Amino acid sequence: MMNPNIVKTVLARRSALVEAHLESCLEDIHMPERLRMAMNYSLLAGGKRLRPVLCLSSASLFGLPETAAMPFALAIEMIHTYSLIHDDLPAMDDDDLRRGRPSCHRQFDEATAILAGDALLTDAFLFMASSGLNLGSGSPLPAGRVLAAIAEIAAAAGSSGMVGGQVLDMECTGQSHVPLDTLRSMHELKTGAMIRVSCTSGAILAGSSPQDTAALHRYGEALGVAFQIQDDILDVTGDTATLGKPAGSDAEEEKTTYPSLVGLDESRRLAAEYADKAASALAGYTGEDADFLRGLANLLVTRNH
Amino acid sequence: MMNPNIVKTVLARRSALVEAHLESCLEDIHMPERLRMAMNYSLLAGGKRLRPVLCLSSASLFGLPETAAMPFALAIEMIHTYSLIHDDLPAMDDDDLRRGRPSCHRQFDEATAILAGDALLTDAFLFMASSGLNLGSGSPLPAGRVLAAIAEIAAAAGSSGMVGGQVLDMECTGQSHVPLDTLRSMHELKTGAMIRVSCTSGAILAGSSPQDTAALHRYGEALGVAFQIQDDILDVTGDTATLGKPAGSDAEEEKTTYPSLVGLDESRRLAAEYADKAASALAGYTGEDADFLRGLANLLVTRNH
Repeated sequence: MMNPNIVKTVLARRSALVEAHLESCLEDIHMPERLRMAMNYSLLAGGKRLRPVLCLSSASLFGLPETAAMPFALAIEMIHTYSLIHDDLPAMDDDDLRRGRPSCHRQFDEATAILAGDALLTDAFLFMASSGLNLGSGSPLPAGRVLAAIAEIAAAAGSSGMVGGQVLDMECTGQSHVPLDTLRSMHELKTGAMIRVSCTSGAILAGSSPQDTAALHRYGEALGVAFQIQDDILDVTGDTATLGKPAGSDAEEEKTTYPSLVGLDESRRLAAEYADKAASALAGYTGEDADFLRGLANLLVTRNH
Repeated sequence: MMNPNIVKTVLARRSALVEAHLESCLEDIHMPERLRMAMNYSLLAGGKRLRPVLCLSSASLFGLPETAAMPFALAIEMIHTYSLIHDDLPAMDDDDLRRGRPSCHRQFDEATAILAGDALLTDAFLFMASSGLNLGSGSPLPAGRVLAAIAEIAAAAGSSGMVGGQVLDMECTGQSHVPLDTLRSMHELKTGAMIRVSCTSGAILAGSSPQDTAALHRYGEALGVAFQIQDDILDVTGDTATLGKPAGSDAEEEKTTYPSLVGLDESRRLAAEYADKAASALAGYTGEDADFLRGLANLLVTRNH
């Protein structure tokens, strides 16, 4: 078991690497300045950068250097960011704040926020596809692997994944009783699919075998559940300053959550159970990346923000 | 020169082929029923299917069968449809009607329309990427070509293309004087880029040489300008019933158009000039597909809807 402090150090190092690349990733694209400002405003609003770190770590686990997997790590964070911008819109969750700052449509306007989201989503696919082309800057990733990873990510982000989950979430909100099964399916699509594919896409890019990809799939799937339960717990037990978003907002919006359905203690037990399940999925792997990924699962359910 | 009636016949046949594939293209994707209904509502609202027909025809010009290029043709129409759904939103153009029927957010609701657009855009990339993977259903397209075509389409649709053009359009709307140069740049991004890439992507998938791709690029670029000028002309001279949208809406919304800047006669001359330019770009090519593409340029500037 990796020392939790080392897990934090590796996480901080990889987050910082992602952050540095995010800061300049739109620089070379010719676009209207207002659009660039809105895209960068949301993309550079901080956050844990969990998904891109998972992508880099899964790639590294199978021998692909972090820099080679970086276009996919950036693309995954761009897709995550677009989903937050659109979720915050007045017609959706109508949130004025995101990570302690005005949400994109409050800082700019609604039309700009819709378009910044659309552009982040589309440009993400440009980054991914370009990584497999010979553009004269470094050797391209094998085209077949790049295509397979793009297909996985599109499936996880689109109608059968994240967008589908958001539709289910809208259908659940305001309902007096949402069964645990429904809640789990909704989270599996809305947040789980992108966390899972962050892991599998890195492995696929590195040329992992079907068995290895399946192990990362199980890891990412369990990690996503653990992450969501902990998110629900923190909304009850955390404070607004630490969270960077209003604590207690789930209860206020009458959202069904793990704590509201099964109580805090059982939620904590479930979170730990899924974190263990994630770590177990990688039981056969050795080395720093495997230790880090296992340790990260434990870290995520003991985090306080 | 192909007889205009034969051009119409080939166009009708290819449109019908695209239509048939559009009708069932979402069938195999597991998603919430409300989302599927909204996506299909907008995707199957009719229209000329110009962009997918251009893609199939350009592919066929270089020997790739229509069915092999179909995933890209469908994806291009899905991206076009998503852009119309988002353009119609209250925060954008606020249009209640699209092709004579309630726009997506009027038929469903705003949140569903935003998400249906997001899903169409994302699923389009799934279709494209899958066409290069060995999924057991027919032989896949070469992965390198598929990646190159995806990159072109993402660039044409994203911040440096269609979305960027929509931001410029918003900045132009309501301005008392927009110079012809600005109007042209805006259209080049907002509608031109996707029309152009419909042509180049088909060619790239078929394995065209850089010279051949460049010819299709010039064709598509000129065709896009001709198409836009004719659109502006029809808004002045057409009637609402034939157009399927309110005639005179540009003047009402005080949009700067070719007729408002240079008059109807000069607009007609320009449209014909660009149609000729498009046809000339393919001057060296022979066979039915080349004849059709040249004839199509002429047909588009003599159309009345």
